[in-house]
Amino acid sequence: MSSGLPGLPGAVTICEVGPRDGLQNEPEPVPADVKLEFIERLADAGHAVIETTSMVHPAWVPQLADADEVLRRLDRRPGVRYPVLVPNQRGLRRALEAGVTDIAVFAPVTESFAKANLNRTVAESLEMFAPVIAAAREAGLPVRGYLSMCWGDPWEGAVPEATVVDVATALISLGCTELSLGDTIGVATPGRVVALLAALTGAGVPLGSIAVHFHDTYGQGLANTFAALQHGVTTVDTSAGGLGGCPYAKSATGNLATEDLLWQLDGLGIHTGLDLAKLIETSLWLAARLGRPSRSAVVRAHANLLR
Amino acid sequence: MSSGLPGLPGAVTICEVGPRDGLQNEPEPVPADVKLEFIERLADAGHAVIETTSMVHPAWVPQLADADEVLRRLDRRPGVRYPVLVPNQRGLRRALEAGVTDIAVFAPVTESFAKANLNRTVAESLEMFAPVIAAAREAGLPVRGYLSMCWGDPWEGAVPEATVVDVATALISLGCTELSLGDTIGVATPGRVVALLAALTGAGVPLGSIAVHFHDTYGQGLANTFAALQHGVTTVDTSAGGLGGCPYAKSATGNLATEDLLWQLDGLGIHTGLDLAKLIETSLWLAARLGRPSRSAVVRAHANLLR
Repeated sequence: MSSGLPGLPGAVTICEVGPRDGLQNEPEPVPADVKLEFIERLADAGHAVIETTSMVHPAWVPQLADADEVLRRLDRRPGVRYPVLVPNQRGLRRALEAGVTDIAVFAPVTESFAKANLNRTVAESLEMFAPVIAAAREAGLPVRGYLSMCWGDPWEGAVPEATVVDVATALISLGCTELSLGDTIGVATPGRVVALLAALTGAGVPLGSIAVHFHDTYGQGLANTFAALQHGVTTVDTSAGGLGGCPYAKSATGNLATEDLLWQLDGLGIHTGLDLAKLIETSLWLAARLGRPSRSAVVRAHANLLR
Repeated sequence: MSSGLPGLPGAVTICEVGPRDGLQNEPEPVPADVKLEFIERLADAGHAVIETTSMVHPAWVPQLADADEVLRRLDRRPGVRYPVLVPNQRGLRRALEAGVTDIAVFAPVTESFAKANLNRTVAESLEMFAPVIAAAREAGLPVRGYLSMCWGDPWEGAVPEATVVDVATALISLGCTELSLGDTIGVATPGRVVALLAALTGAGVPLGSIAVHFHDTYGQGLANTFAALQHGVTTVDTSAGGLGGCPYAKSATGNLATEDLLWQLDGLGIHTGLDLAKLIETSLWLAARLGRPSRSAVVRAHANLLR
């Protein structure tokens, strides 16, 4: 069944970022056993792309200090990709030694965030990533580039499209095979989403290499994703149960929840390969481990129906 | 500034349903003083349509037992409409005596909900409303018809478009000047929203007489509204802070929050005449009166920024 709406794709790839982007924002580190079962359950539910962990220094992100253990014990399934975020060349070496086959790097778009997050300029951060991306590409690995604060920045306000285009085209030149456009503080609206997509494709970035990554801080995540799908995007980042958050937005609201997007995509007849019931069960299981209810509206509605 | 997206309107009328649809679902009745200040604050923020109360019997909805007092003390502003829900001819007489100039009736679409809510068939409920609508029209009042469970029903599942079209065209024939399509349990997705709108206009219902009324139970309210706007709808029902809920969905989630829609419309450059800062202030004020945080993501994000 197709959606009947013009412009929508027949299939969407959901990149599940819960184990990394989600759990790195939990106040307390989650045990490696729970992380591994979480990843297993996500693969069971049909996920083909599960961002697994990050090779960032444990002093910065203690929540993911067990990255080596998680990767060593990970039961990799055929057909499933397990990308890992690497901050530098040392992180890449550790990832390659652990058998990682998909890499992601995290590029600030605005000078303020580059300064706050990496204590570098945007240009310096790109210089830092250049040899990482080159080495990963030489090893035959696809490399995803995360662009943060693509529509708004807590220090600078609205971010001009040209600023994002500059970083995006630089990352493509450096060898990135996919770009994930992050609305880190959740302020975007559909017109600006589509305007940025048009600016990027106008600058030669192929639509097929673009993923969108929305946060629900202002309740806009699903509508923005819908607008991006209408514009030809076919890869969307979400987290199980809406895990995650951004400390810079001073808000508890996380990524767009996988279940809330899947409710829409299932309703539109857009193929994802995912099993909503298994995802809901997984988020209820994880919520019990984390000791707080899921932020996903779909998961909460189902929990209420079970009462 | 226009949105730059094709198909979107230049202006949208938001029908604020918080004082009626919202507060009638509160576990405890809210004092009339609070209701009146709430309505004053909504008008101050620029609302031109504020659904004020309901003339339903106090035994059914004790939360609105003070309808006569609220209407007597209401400070009606020029240019602002204060519609009131009436269930029957007695309710209409009370409303007319209280100086009400905008009426709404509530029509079930599915047989199961008609039975559960009114202990009548759909045809019997239309017969019941026929003289109410006729008398209101004779008195020169516009009459809004609410259609409930337009996309899904907890007993019957998905609701066929033809079922909604039958009730909608009957209400127009009876004299309704506007129809509000309610997704009472919050299950709709954009393809089905657009399909129903197309079926209604295909049956001769003018787009300009159609409002959409989404609940956020499954997180779909804003994306569905966006799809409806793209299809030519220009009237949207929302509630301040996302007040409301539907007991039949066993869920705490209410109407689409006015603030969350306004964030999108402001971002798209679509005119509403509303002041977001005043609305947020109003929802924070009301949340303090109700003793629980607002459900609006925008209101919560602002509350977090103030911490």
